[in-house]
Amino acid sequence: MTGPLSYEAAGVDVPAAERFVETIGPIVRSTHGDAVIAHPSHFAGLIRPDFTGMGDPLIAATCDGVGTKVLLASSPGHYEGLGRDLVAMNVNDLLPLGARPLLFLDYLAVGKLRPERLEAAVRGMAAACREAHCALLGGETAEMPDMHSGDDIGMAGFAAGLIDAARLPDPATIEPGDAVLGLPSTGLHANGFSLARKALLERGHFDLEASVPGLDGTLGDTLRTPTAIYVDQVLALADDVGFKAAAHITGGGLLGRAAAMLPDGVGMRIDPDSYPRSPVFALIAAAGDIEPGEMATTFNMGLGFVAIVDPDRAANARGWLRVGEVVEGGGVDLGYAFR
Amino acid sequence: MTGPLSYEAAGVDVPAAERFVETIGPIVRSTHGDAVIAHPSHFAGLIRPDFTGMGDPLIAATCDGVGTKVLLASSPGHYEGLGRDLVAMNVNDLLPLGARPLLFLDYLAVGKLRPERLEAAVRGMAAACREAHCALLGGETAEMPDMHSGDDIGMAGFAAGLIDAARLPDPATIEPGDAVLGLPSTGLHANGFSLARKALLERGHFDLEASVPGLDGTLGDTLRTPTAIYVDQVLALADDVGFKAAAHITGGGLLGRAAAMLPDGVGMRIDPDSYPRSPVFALIAAAGDIEPGEMATTFNMGLGFVAIVDPDRAANARGWLRVGEVVEGGGVDLGYAFR
Repeated sequence: MTGPLSYEAAGVDVPAAERFVETIGPIVRSTHGDAVIAHPSHFAGLIRPDFTGMGDPLIAATCDGVGTKVLLASSPGHYEGLGRDLVAMNVNDLLPLGARPLLFLDYLAVGKLRPERLEAAVRGMAAACREAHCALLGGETAEMPDMHSGDDIGMAGFAAGLIDAARLPDPATIEPGDAVLGLPSTGLHANGFSLARKALLERGHFDLEASVPGLDGTLGDTLRTPTAIYVDQVLALADDVGFKAAAHITGGGLLGRAAAMLPDGVGMRIDPDSYPRSPVFALIAAAGDIEPGEMATTFNMGLGFVAIVDPDRAANARGWLRVGEVVEGGGVDLGYAFR
Repeated sequence: MTGPLSYEAAGVDVPAAERFVETIGPIVRSTHGDAVIAHPSHFAGLIRPDFTGMGDPLIAATCDGVGTKVLLASSPGHYEGLGRDLVAMNVNDLLPLGARPLLFLDYLAVGKLRPERLEAAVRGMAAACREAHCALLGGETAEMPDMHSGDDIGMAGFAAGLIDAARLPDPATIEPGDAVLGLPSTGLHANGFSLARKALLERGHFDLEASVPGLDGTLGDTLRTPTAIYVDQVLALADDVGFKAAAHITGGGLLGRAAAMLPDGVGMRIDPDSYPRSPVFALIAAAGDIEPGEMATTFNMGLGFVAIVDPDRAANARGWLRVGEVVEGGGVDLGYAFR
């Protein structure tokens, strides 16, 4: 090939990127309340934090992606779901500190800019940000030919929130008899997909687009269900009840995340009949012949969020399930040999 | 293949990830001053912002990656440089608002966890965070077999900083006669690599590991030079002089970024002899037969950061070059047909 080289000839379509940024403008602004400050410089987003009632305000910040769940996406609707996942994985990670989400930013890495998919992803993010009461304050879409295939999107997110130091949960106060509360997951959320795909698709030869007895809709529908956003429930719990520790059940699974909540000398018993558990977990275990311990250290097993509270106050928790209790000793007993 | 499937058999090595997190702990903590709050919950980082002297504190937040510059990396030293790039690309983006960097988080996406490379990247990030006076508050390393080849690392970063609303730059005050100040770049920084690689390696058949007349060291050394961190210079300029607008010269290049700084009715003239310009830009243009306008809307062309200040106060700027002035009319004149 001869003739002058250009950024576009090198695979980077700047005008398409500019059109994309213009298209998503109104979608992004739908998440902006009065707190977001417009400034002609577009290098960073600006927001006025509300410290009302906070004597010692702290900023909590986290980042996370959606892993290989993106490999199951093919339609714009699927990317919209992934946008929700991305926000959920991040804002939910602020909640174990009791922090109120303030802002979210996204980073999308693509081989080729496909506006309809990316726009769907941003639409999903914006809806999720509104649900989490945080601003989609900015983002970066990087077109990187030679690094990504045309089809997959690398998705990373970043969230920051506020918490008064005096209201931070204190796991040192956990004691036997404390109640364990939980919120059901909507399915796998965005963890363990490398294992789930291998078990179901490679070993089990399941068809993503076929129905599986016991699952609503197709297997793909079940696997692609977006991660639940727990902001309202957890902040209400902090206000109404207060919690001593909490965990977003992500990498490490229910077993790993529950164990990490506990100080030395106490354990946790979870009643397996106290919460709904999607049959997809048993399906994955069967298809991959996966040990129960491996399942429970990889997947959320039906509980997306867990909190430990004073048992006398547990009845004030609205919308939470009482799923277990803190016991003497140590370890986490999930109450089942796998079933 | 038969036998029980596991997360490790699916390509995700959780123990290796845990060892990696343990190894980088002290490196990460080297960036933590008293402001970072330790909490047993590890879902998010916590930091106490210092609002001293701020009547109306705002949070600025941004995210960015290093693009396809990662494709030039092969040794741990190269990844250390990319860690620096990642921090620089983000904290420098806070500076046009005058915001002081507070925290940084990284997201690394890999096909296979290679601890020595990732550790080098984190080492580079930590050094850069110390230079930028911000905390490396957290990060996520995602091992995603089937999405990344063993060799490349997807790198994204997020930074947040603080600025008092009363001290935000106001581009509406820019007028003809204002001085344009600049800071030299260290080379390409982390922009335009898809075009640079195509021009130099595919068209020009240059060897990354060979010397090129006029460049220090090998071509690879020149291209891999980490992005400059401008925090100290820009915050000092804000204090000593004050600026009306500023730009980190990234995507869009010197021409695009300079033009975006200007309100309607004024232009900018930059004196091409007022700042050093690496010969690598001319080399890329020649190898790819790239038009001057295309070069200047893709690369920084030697200037990594530009600020517009009151001409009467420009002499107070320490460590800045006076590179041009604001003129009546419009447009940006870089002062050269390419040379």
